[in-house]
Amino acid sequence: METKKKLSIICFSGDFDKAVAAFTLATGAAAVNWEVRMFFTFWGLNIIKKRKGRAPVGKGFLAAAFNFLMGGRSNLPVSRLNFGGLSPGLMTGMMKKNNVATLEELIEAAKQLGVPLIACEMSMHILGMRKEDLDDDIPEVIDVATFLKYSEDAQVIFI
Amino acid sequence: METKKKLSIICFSGDFDKAVAAFTLATGAAAVNWEVRMFFTFWGLNIIKKRKGRAPVGKGFLAAAFNFLMGGRSNLPVSRLNFGGLSPGLMTGMMKKNNVATLEELIEAAKQLGVPLIACEMSMHILGMRKEDLDDDIPEVIDVATFLKYSEDAQVIFI
Amino acid sequence: METKKKLSIICFSGDFDKAVAAFTLATGAAAVNWEVRMFFTFWGLNIIKKRKGRAPVGKGFLAAAFNFLMGGRSNLPVSRLNFGGLSPGLMTGMMKKNNVATLEELIEAAKQLGVPLIACEMSMHILGMRKEDLDDDIPEVIDVATFLKYSEDAQVIFI
Repeated sequence: METKKKLSIICFSGDFDKAVAAFTLATGAAAVNWEVRMFFTFWGLNIIKKRKGRAPVGKGFLAAAFNFLMGGRSNLPVSRLNFGGLSPGLMTGMMKKNNVATLEELIEAAKQLGVPLIACEMSMHILGMRKEDLDDDIPEVIDVATFLKYSEDAQVIFI
Repeated sequence: METKKKLSIICFSGDFDKAVAAFTLATGAAAVNWEVRMFFTFWGLNIIKKRKGRAPVGKGFLAAAFNFLMGGRSNLPVSRLNFGGLSPGLMTGMMKKNNVATLEELIEAAKQLGVPLIACEMSMHILGMRKEDLDDDIPEVIDVATFLKYSEDAQVIFI
Repeated sequence: METKKKLSIICFSGDFDKAVAAFTLATGAAAVNWEVRMFFTFWGLNIIKKRKGRAPVGKGFLAAAFNFLMGGRSNLPVSRLNFGGLSPGLMTGMMKKNNVATLEELIEAAKQLGVPLIACEMSMHILGMRKEDLDDDIPEVIDVATFLKYSEDAQVIFI
């Protein structure tokens, strides 16, 4: 009996284009029956954060400042800052025009395929975020040791 | 009989310094007889794109805008934008001065060592690029599932 | 007898937040008895460089310019340049406030746990750096082939 292939994706970046890459890999691997887990840490937490306009998240001034900086996934920047003209909106337009799944569709697909979106406890501590600041269907907040346990036999990709 | 070690490098970034790192790893691994594949996706496609001055690539306005932003590998920026003074030209100068292979030499070496430079189909769809927009010796344009198949038993590095 | 899990972390980035992520993974893995090695290359060398104010490093004009750009780890920038307000100082403040180890504490912990911090020879050539420009407790400067040898059976993460 063949062991199921495993993929652990560490989503460190909160950049729109890198999020697209991460979810493309995740959904592609889940679709061919790999066991995929996505771990959101630092800026990547922005991707699974509740949308702007909800109750303010975090506690204290520093967290508030940080929260201001992390506006949720409707405001993800692209990673190439010097490509001034290329906004996530423009990129989403190109994706729709060319019949490629958008980021929202990719995230939805990942959830449908049963890919757990897992949050990093330490990053949440640093940023003063609470479990309720995350999307309601985020199943777990874990520490580094648990991540390592999950990833023992997996391909690990840091994005 | 020992299995040949495999290395899959996902070249997501189009930054000059990261391209140097990717090709250094690729040629180094190929030289010690690892089976190496490089997958170019998103901005990384810029590294294997035909040079500027050829016929305009892509179709439509969005692709044209994008094409303007991606000038081909003679115009790769460095990843550290705040290091204003450090251009790819300066870095190439330092590489020549210190007898290190330049990016062009590294790319050539990778091809000589038989490392396949493979393009990501979905990214090309998003960007409206066609096979003929890439360097003539790019052997393959593949989808995510094929990438995963290739990378099953490989070390995978995302750059 | 179970083989010890191995983790190779390539620290390419010199960004403060990515350094925190790298050392968090490294110390976490070492703490649960993985065999961890960290390889510092390009901008990552900044993390293990002697502090500013020591004798100038490198040789020649280009190296001097580069040296100016790489001020040592007390001056690491954060990776998200558009988050203008978030300095390493602010982030360190948030880490202390929330009882998370700071970068200096993480580096110290990695050393205590016996994680070798290894420098990449080729990057040092490019940058005109010498062994004595690095922290005194950096045990090794190695080439790519040696890195690959070390990483043969390891999880490899590029940060």
